[in-house]
Amino acid sequence: MAGNSFGTLFKISTFGASHGAGIGVVIDGCPANIQLDIDYIQYQLNRRKPGQSAIVTQRKESDDFKILSGVFEGKTTGTPICLFIENTNHKPRDYEHIKDIYRPSHADFTYQAKYGFRDYRGGGRSSARETAARVAAGAIAQQILIQKGITITAYVSQVGGLKVKDSYQQLDLDQIEKTVVRCPDLQLAPQMIDYIKQVRKQGDTVGGVVDCVIKGCPSGLGEPVFDRLHAELGKAMLSINACKGFQYGSGFDGVDMLGSQHNDPMVAKGGVVRTTSNYSGGIQGGISNGMDIYFKTAFKPVATIMQAQQSVNYQGEAVVVEGRGRHDPCVVPRAVPIVETMAALVILDYWLMAKAYQS
Amino acid sequence: MAGNSFGTLFKISTFGASHGAGIGVVIDGCPANIQLDIDYIQYQLNRRKPGQSAIVTQRKESDDFKILSGVFEGKTTGTPICLFIENTNHKPRDYEHIKDIYRPSHADFTYQAKYGFRDYRGGGRSSARETAARVAAGAIAQQILIQKGITITAYVSQVGGLKVKDSYQQLDLDQIEKTVVRCPDLQLAPQMIDYIKQVRKQGDTVGGVVDCVIKGCPSGLGEPVFDRLHAELGKAMLSINACKGFQYGSGFDGVDMLGSQHNDPMVAKGGVVRTTSNYSGGIQGGISNGMDIYFKTAFKPVATIMQAQQSVNYQGEAVVVEGRGRHDPCVVPRAVPIVETMAALVILDYWLMAKAYQS
Amino acid sequence: MAGNSFGTLFKISTFGASHGAGIGVVIDGCPANIQLDIDYIQYQLNRRKPGQSAIVTQRKESDDFKILSGVFEGKTTGTPICLFIENTNHKPRDYEHIKDIYRPSHADFTYQAKYGFRDYRGGGRSSARETAARVAAGAIAQQILIQKGITITAYVSQVGGLKVKDSYQQLDLDQIEKTVVRCPDLQLAPQMIDYIKQVRKQGDTVGGVVDCVIKGCPSGLGEPVFDRLHAELGKAMLSINACKGFQYGSGFDGVDMLGSQHNDPMVAKGGVVRTTSNYSGGIQGGISNGMDIYFKTAFKPVATIMQAQQSVNYQGEAVVVEGRGRHDPCVVPRAVPIVETMAALVILDYWLMAKAYQS
Amino acid sequence: MAGNSFGTLFKISTFGASHGAGIGVVIDGCPANIQLDIDYIQYQLNRRKPGQSAIVTQRKESDDFKILSGVFEGKTTGTPICLFIENTNHKPRDYEHIKDIYRPSHADFTYQAKYGFRDYRGGGRSSARETAARVAAGAIAQQILIQKGITITAYVSQVGGLKVKDSYQQLDLDQIEKTVVRCPDLQLAPQMIDYIKQVRKQGDTVGGVVDCVIKGCPSGLGEPVFDRLHAELGKAMLSINACKGFQYGSGFDGVDMLGSQHNDPMVAKGGVVRTTSNYSGGIQGGISNGMDIYFKTAFKPVATIMQAQQSVNYQGEAVVVEGRGRHDPCVVPRAVPIVETMAALVILDYWLMAKAYQS
Repeated sequence: MAGNSFGTLFKISTFGASHGAGIGVVIDGCPANIQLDIDYIQYQLNRRKPGQSAIVTQRKESDDFKILSGVFEGKTTGTPICLFIENTNHKPRDYEHIKDIYRPSHADFTYQAKYGFRDYRGGGRSSARETAARVAAGAIAQQILIQKGITITAYVSQVGGLKVKDSYQQLDLDQIEKTVVRCPDLQLAPQMIDYIKQVRKQGDTVGGVVDCVIKGCPSGLGEPVFDRLHAELGKAMLSINACKGFQYGSGFDGVDMLGSQHNDPMVAKGGVVRTTSNYSGGIQGGISNGMDIYFKTAFKPVATIMQAQQSVNYQGEAVVVEGRGRHDPCVVPRAVPIVETMAALVILDYWLMAKAYQS
Repeated sequence: MAGNSFGTLFKISTFGASHGAGIGVVIDGCPANIQLDIDYIQYQLNRRKPGQSAIVTQRKESDDFKILSGVFEGKTTGTPICLFIENTNHKPRDYEHIKDIYRPSHADFTYQAKYGFRDYRGGGRSSARETAARVAAGAIAQQILIQKGITITAYVSQVGGLKVKDSYQQLDLDQIEKTVVRCPDLQLAPQMIDYIKQVRKQGDTVGGVVDCVIKGCPSGLGEPVFDRLHAELGKAMLSINACKGFQYGSGFDGVDMLGSQHNDPMVAKGGVVRTTSNYSGGIQGGISNGMDIYFKTAFKPVATIMQAQQSVNYQGEAVVVEGRGRHDPCVVPRAVPIVETMAALVILDYWLMAKAYQS
Repeated sequence: MAGNSFGTLFKISTFGASHGAGIGVVIDGCPANIQLDIDYIQYQLNRRKPGQSAIVTQRKESDDFKILSGVFEGKTTGTPICLFIENTNHKPRDYEHIKDIYRPSHADFTYQAKYGFRDYRGGGRSSARETAARVAAGAIAQQILIQKGITITAYVSQVGGLKVKDSYQQLDLDQIEKTVVRCPDLQLAPQMIDYIKQVRKQGDTVGGVVDCVIKGCPSGLGEPVFDRLHAELGKAMLSINACKGFQYGSGFDGVDMLGSQHNDPMVAKGGVVRTTSNYSGGIQGGISNGMDIYFKTAFKPVATIMQAQQSVNYQGEAVVVEGRGRHDPCVVPRAVPIVETMAALVILDYWLMAKAYQS
Repeated sequence: MAGNSFGTLFKISTFGASHGAGIGVVIDGCPANIQLDIDYIQYQLNRRKPGQSAIVTQRKESDDFKILSGVFEGKTTGTPICLFIENTNHKPRDYEHIKDIYRPSHADFTYQAKYGFRDYRGGGRSSARETAARVAAGAIAQQILIQKGITITAYVSQVGGLKVKDSYQQLDLDQIEKTVVRCPDLQLAPQMIDYIKQVRKQGDTVGGVVDCVIKGCPSGLGEPVFDRLHAELGKAMLSINACKGFQYGSGFDGVDMLGSQHNDPMVAKGGVVRTTSNYSGGIQGGISNGMDIYFKTAFKPVATIMQAQQSVNYQGEAVVVEGRGRHDPCVVPRAVPIVETMAALVILDYWLMAKAYQS
């Protein structure tokens, strides 16, 4: 297995690290004969890329991608699509000072423990830069889903203690891109932005929550008992850097509800079965029921801070680590397209799976 | 894929439903030459089985298992182990009344939507009875892990609004089995029990939270970037019936912490690197770091309630559904060994994986 | 992986050994809502079972199967189907004499080398008895394929030096079951039978070849570049006990043909593209082209002979091994349904795969 | 699945086609901390590349590769290694004449049937150019195996009707690279070369056989019952373009042997168990026994010939196709490193698998 592939029928494999030639992704199982919308891929990459606004890291990467294979005359051929993004940010930056030091709450120690050797430059493979490759692939999955009437929309619902109170139904999701923090609550968004700026000034970071809603998903997607739709969505989200939690439907709040409150009453109209509430989050028994699928993902504060921290080096000696240069005070604005990406990969994969089995 | 297998090197495949001949599991990849502790398997099955106390369903199933293959002279042969549990609870119980009805928040509708046909007796394959097969397999994984010094301990930390305030370090985990609710907070446990009884009297159900801690896990387990250790743990937990959320380490509470608070300072003693706090939850960059791994899983209230509910039948007509017979007012006491099981399957699988790659 | 599963979308996992409770198979991914023909499953099992004629082993096994799961009211539910065959041949047979001895060209030594421990009774898991479980599953795959107009027919084309000269097109495949050797060349069949009897009298064994032809397979099945249709067929066949070789289309005979002879000219009639010869064996570039798929599988002489042989025991001491009781002088008559089974599993799996991707 | 990955623990995924930017491979699961021998990778690529001698295609490709990821300071990091080979042979060559024509015994028709769309330039993804990516990956696997004392050596044993009579033990395998045909029988090699030249002059092609021997493989590799070592080797070989057959050990010749001749007597010397003959081909019950593993692979004549052939176009009209430019009269000299590659991928993958399970 080895961990760098995701999906069964629509399968992606990413490669590359924050330094070295670049990062890329191979998509195996993309249906043939699909006209690719290149602009949409770039649009999603731009939403993820550093330097896009005042509240994210100021590192500059153009994140332009090349198509190395799988596309002919603008259309997918059904053979593996390789997308590649060069690493252009090659200024002589000094990583020598952290070469043999473990940065707290980074993957430095664990990569060393696992592989016995690591590329210490910018976190190497453990860098969130890897997610750019995912987003490129996810943008292809998303455009295929859109053609099937399935839309996936993520947004920031919490930054630190600042939490959106409205549900996704009460919000106007068209407002997401109105602010750089990607929160559709336009009262709260400016406060979030101010707070992130303040945190940054302190050389600190803060966590947040990204919500996601999937509309138009047909009933019947999901492969119980282990590959339940929400289980795969959960794994997908938890595979994103800094993600610490996942819940769908009522989630942790459903715990202190009674069954009589939580059960979603069913009605039928014109042959279509629906529920009048949706605590189930669009999934019952691990299979989509045709209602909206919605979930939350928790992100911890980014580990790189501009403050002195206690740590150790390879020799087991106590050292003080201090971040240098730029840092990303809050990851959630850039995590929005990544959450959409991982959701799209799951839904398309399961959509193909359902197609295989349906009679 | 088809969804009924879990794991790569230590792989289980379950089969069977609440009715029919029985349920079973095939374990493929169990290391050879291991003396099996049969009693431990039965012990874990007994912790999961119905009828074990006054606060769980009173359905009677003995849950005795047979070994159909893979064990010779009491030891594993390295070939597939099949464990089978007969369905003995065959009293002439009437499922005719729900035959063509979708019970709210059950999988009736989604199974029908997916497969176009379903075994309506007791939920069929979507019944939590399937988890007995998992527990039998998990008990084998657990005993192998124990021999390696890795222990996995789950307990109930919340029932409805009744929530344990102490962390797992502050609790005495030896108290878990002291009460039928499997909550080691012996002040809170009786209140939980009373609350569950009261909920049951109302013909209602309530949710809860199961916490789990894994001790003794070596550093280096996890397969980034997609198969991060916590991502697989999350998927494992979310594959359990009624599970709605998963978080590890600081989880959703880490969201409003600052990086300077959340980062775990590192120290080394005698060549062993440790962190002085553990908001990371024992996993950094998707790889275990040798500290305790801990996580929370949220369970919704069970869907079967003894109250009238609005629903529809196959013909799209409005109907009123009412549960009959016995019901399980709160699933978390019985979920404890299931959470341990799924954790054990992940850890052993990743332990074998790490072994393959290490030099 | 661990080796005991085959297939991706229509996946089987077998368990059990020649001794112990029995053998079984779990099918994960069988389409739902299919009325099962139980008699056909038993028919195929009977074609494989011992004791069916004078030229195969006289061991008695009834090979009746039970359905443990996945079937309700005679139809598949889309959930895992477990089929189980009890081991009934439990006469107090003595395996003590080979307990710590490696029988030449059996798997005794290699199982011991791999697992460090083995069930020495009748070969344990390495016994060809495991293939009965496959045949039960394959009979389900075959009946699904038949409904799609795809038929799979295997027959014996060689026993020792006695080789059918006609191609499958020249033979009347309806004659296969006319003789116990399952060779449709009714001139040669009696000679084969006589030869096998003579070999048996000498306490010896002999090899053979099974040919197989798949008719009605649509074009477009196959997943290049690694999972070419013929590559998976080859693996499937080579996974059968005693199989030493596989070739399709022109096979090894195509080696000394010229391209100008070997290339299959193409014609179109009524929109259907066909080739006028078929050295390609119905597969080009790893994908079926709609023509007949045909291949050959070579089987070595069975290792169990009734003659004294030089070998060693666990202690590394020289010993003389001699077979006792009954033996199977030639495996190919019983291999016929096994070859059909493995072919059916591949074709159905790839058929489902093609369905997932096709637009 | 989608077909473009091979292996479980040491897994490769190839991408790219004969035209477009280039071809590449991602290796996931390469052990960390291995000093790569870049020259060896190039050496193997050179053995495969076109234009290397007078008896292969004269197309010019430099086949230089770039490392896009996974290597730091010359050593593997344990993260995905991407190797990329640019397509440099971009002369304005005209494929317009075959744009809507199916070339006989190519994959033109089947790709069109499967994907509904295809890159017609030079066969696109179905071109044997894809195997260059495999060879680059295989050269890494091979150098890891060499460090473990496992060597893999392939050679040409037959071209058309010209067949080496000696077994690999009787041949001097150091002579393989002495002739451009890679046949160690130095009497026969010049005849093969002459024959290939003559076939080329006629605008025709001819098939051949590549033999391979694996020395130093420890006992215990193989995952019965489906993933037997030889079954995976067979699949690996059959996944190579133009391969029509595979046999190991006695293969098809073992069919008319008696068990008493075919069984390999066992002896033990100094604790090491060996067989005095090796008809088993180093594998018993699907698991290596420590003896040499050897097998044969049959290759058909290449489909591209410089002669007029009858075919059809997309519109179903009869057309005459004639090859243009250069062609490869016999594929086997260039197939030698490809066979070695696929064998190395299997053996290393299974070696890692055995390591995971061994106690």
